[in-house]
Amino acid sequence: MRKLDILDSTLREGEQYIKTYFTQEQRLMIARLLDALGVAFIEVPSPIASPETHEAVEAICALNLRSKIVAHVRCVEADVQAALETPVYGLNLFYGTSSELRSFSHGRRIDQIKQDAVPLIHAIRAAGRYVRFSAEDAFRSDLVDLLTVFDAVVEAGVDRIGLPDTVGIATPRQVERLLHLISSRYPHVGIEFHGHNDTGCAIANTIGAFEGGADCLDVTVLGIGERNGIASLSGIIAQLYIHYPDLLAGYDLTRLAEIDEYVSQTLGVPIPFNMPITAPNAFTHRAGVHTKAVLQNPRAYEVLDPDDFGLTRHVDVGSRYTGRHAVG
Amino acid sequence: MRKLDILDSTLREGEQYIKTYFTQEQRLMIARLLDALGVAFIEVPSPIASPETHEAVEAICALNLRSKIVAHVRCVEADVQAALETPVYGLNLFYGTSSELRSFSHGRRIDQIKQDAVPLIHAIRAAGRYVRFSAEDAFRSDLVDLLTVFDAVVEAGVDRIGLPDTVGIATPRQVERLLHLISSRYPHVGIEFHGHNDTGCAIANTIGAFEGGADCLDVTVLGIGERNGIASLSGIIAQLYIHYPDLLAGYDLTRLAEIDEYVSQTLGVPIPFNMPITAPNAFTHRAGVHTKAVLQNPRAYEVLDPDDFGLTRHVDVGSRYTGRHAVG
Ligand SMILES: O=C(O)CCC(=O)C(=O)O
Ligand SMILES: O=C(O)CCC(=O)C(=O)O
Ligand SMILES: [Cu+2]
Ligand SMILES: [Cu+2]
Repeated sequence: MRKLDILDSTLREGEQYIKTYFTQEQRLMIARLLDALGVAFIEVPSPIASPETHEAVEAICALNLRSKIVAHVRCVEADVQAALETPVYGLNLFYGTSSELRSFSHGRRIDQIKQDAVPLIHAIRAAGRYVRFSAEDAFRSDLVDLLTVFDAVVEAGVDRIGLPDTVGIATPRQVERLLHLISSRYPHVGIEFHGHNDTGCAIANTIGAFEGGADCLDVTVLGIGERNGIASLSGIIAQLYIHYPDLLAGYDLTRLAEIDEYVSQTLGVPIPFNMPITAPNAFTHRAGVHTKAVLQNPRAYEVLDPDDFGLTRHVDVGSRYTGRHAVG
Repeated sequence: MRKLDILDSTLREGEQYIKTYFTQEQRLMIARLLDALGVAFIEVPSPIASPETHEAVEAICALNLRSKIVAHVRCVEADVQAALETPVYGLNLFYGTSSELRSFSHGRRIDQIKQDAVPLIHAIRAAGRYVRFSAEDAFRSDLVDLLTVFDAVVEAGVDRIGLPDTVGIATPRQVERLLHLISSRYPHVGIEFHGHNDTGCAIANTIGAFEGGADCLDVTVLGIGERNGIASLSGIIAQLYIHYPDLLAGYDLTRLAEIDEYVSQTLGVPIPFNMPITAPNAFTHRAGVHTKAVLQNPRAYEVLDPDDFGLTRHVDVGSRYTGRHAVG
């Protein structure tokens, strides 16, 4: 069986959602809930961002969770040093490799990106920490640029490389193909994917990445993040439940609703009605044709069993949609 | 260029969302807005469902929209007759073909499904109306059963056949493959897809259907429907905008936000933060790394141009995420 890690970035990507203002206590609660669910990695922001962030990272590490804590850090020496001064398990480096980000974000050329990243990777390895390097905006990056940078960071000793679809432009097929190419070229490092939802395919793209060879998938609780977010934890769990159930062996799925509910409450934002599994209506049946069949056997219109998530089905009998003439 | 119709089913599938209680006036407004946007088909419920439904269907037809009005009708003679007594453009028949729906919904065998459907298709054709036949739960149906039923209804003269992923179990790759098989076997009829979102891939599956050969894609405003809904209009528009912009030539994209907003208000449910294009935060940039670049050139972190939708970008400068030390 292939191995698959889920990385939850609610405390980093999720904090980039415009409505997120977590308190320290809420951050600790979210980390504990994610750990209880069973995610392999919890991503936190760069400790250098602010004293509050630094304190949050220290406090989360002090929880001594089974989930590994990784800090999301720019390829800048001061940022790496600040992260290494905390007890994080590892550093998730990122650097924009597309021409758009090279022109309008950091202004560095491909050879400069290598020059910046390689010594930092050596330093992190020398400090005995896990290190991942992501090519930000990988799906708008030229393939030669992408491979040039990955060749250098793999040679420098990274544990994993990441391919974020930073602007949400990729299709499941493109993701699967590029990830297949990358995982074939670098068989001895881990491969991570991070998919934004601008065109509505974050979940499908993230599963496409697994099918192309990724061994680490980024999610956030409810999918919160920059703009309209990334793949949701619930969405990826729903996919694995249907298509790769063995990979969920280590998870306590009954914790999923609790964590979605908790984050929804701290944000003051209801769980969207389109959320797999945890939407209040995800197991609600309304049309007469549906309710009639579901009362006979829920499998008629359900492929996920709400029991497995500690949830219950709701069959809307008696509404105008299920009356004598109900034909919906 | 290939032709592609969008079918909006907000007034049928959307009415199966547990929070939907449209008034007649709201139904008419939704139909007008969809027509102004430019969708080819508007699906309405079966006129036999209730006197209120019958009245709604008549009133929507009386608007004389460019969008074609199609009634969603069971393969039952009384239902077909009732629909034919209204001036709808066509009838969208459906019949469960999976063993799950044959056992727990209608209890009919494959040969009986053919016997029920074929004379009704003849009657609808004789009445000069458009007719589509959908194999409900197509993605859990045995291929022989599916083709047996489709062979019969195509022979009987349907204009289009439909393949709904009724329980939201399919993957983009499966959808593309099955649609490819079906569109190759029946080159002279239209092919429709309808994808539920239980595992979070409704939008990707729906675009996968187009890539497999579908020429009609079902959506609802915001993606509302049974359980956690189907592909959203905004999601499919976002996909076409990026990958097949020529297909949007006939649309007035500046109407999209208005219709999402209108339906959100009538439901009393906010537009989910994960909605492509129309989420209030879809063009909001928060992290320092992002805002800095977007102020230089929005293309750095945006692949959809909010201007094209009559929307505006929001760059969150001055928050703690974009201060002096902002590194997110
Ligand atoms: O570091 C990464 O892999 C992801 C960074 C990020 O949030 C993005 O590119 O969207
Ligand atoms: O008639 C159709 O194609 C779709 C019916 C439906 O809503 C479904 O199967 O999910
Ligand atoms: Cu991101
Ligand atoms: Cu449906």
